[in-house]
Amino acid sequence: MSAKINHIAIVVEDIERALAVYRDVIGLPLEHIAEEPAEEVRIAFLPTSSGEIELIQPTTADSGVAKFLAKRGEGLHHICMEVEDIDATVAEMASRGLEILGQPRHNERGEKYVFIHPKSAHGVLLELYERPG
Amino acid sequence: MSAKINHIAIVVEDIERALAVYRDVIGLPLEHIAEEPAEEVRIAFLPTSSGEIELIQPTTADSGVAKFLAKRGEGLHHICMEVEDIDATVAEMASRGLEILGQPRHNERGEKYVFIHPKSAHGVLLELYERPG
Repeated sequence: MSAKINHIAIVVEDIERALAVYRDVIGLPLEHIAEEPAEEVRIAFLPTSSGEIELIQPTTADSGVAKFLAKRGEGLHHICMEVEDIDATVAEMASRGLEILGQPRHNERGEKYVFIHPKSAHGVLLELYERPG
Repeated sequence: MSAKINHIAIVVEDIERALAVYRDVIGLPLEHIAEEPAEEVRIAFLPTSSGEIELIQPTTADSGVAKFLAKRGEGLHHICMEVEDIDATVAEMASRGLEILGQPRHNERGEKYVFIHPKSAHGVLLELYERPG
């Protein structure tokens, strides 16, 4: 598995209010904001020279992200590591006892991703993302 | 403020057990493990091409990290952004209403860092770190 962080996701109540801190005070650049219907969220993409910060806001009340927000409040949600071959990585991890949340699936840009259960990664919701070849 | 993630910190009960996942299954390289007495933690440094993953384990029962672990369990603890001039950045942030946790101080390597209160960053404990010039 290649060792590269693709992004860090922060769940927020309202992207525009969070941008008032992350963009306007901390100074991160806002690339764009997009809907991700498969995850029932809006995402603000703030690139840095070492991976993106993503601000994610639930668009429905009963998604996994919405439930996380209701239970734990705003804050760090997951980290995403890039992998070269997501199917091979997932097969290897599953064989070593990590709990994979479903099968690798495609985001709005057609890229493959999957999540690892926090109980398999010391409390961290871990996303794997296959860099387009 | 420069936009670069220096590291992501994950609080764990036991560094060696966490390495069995993060190093041995996920495949991150372990650079070294060091004590950080000022924060009452041991830290395992796992560098990637886009910032480090740090596994932090409390070494006392009543530090901020130990209390976090007792209250919330293992998981994502903070993210650290690099800045060029930490004193200037902190002065600017304080003037814009962000709550700074104390004054910039030095770690074991003599580098300056400071934390921003999570309530000022939408639930994220944010560390600022001054890159040695």
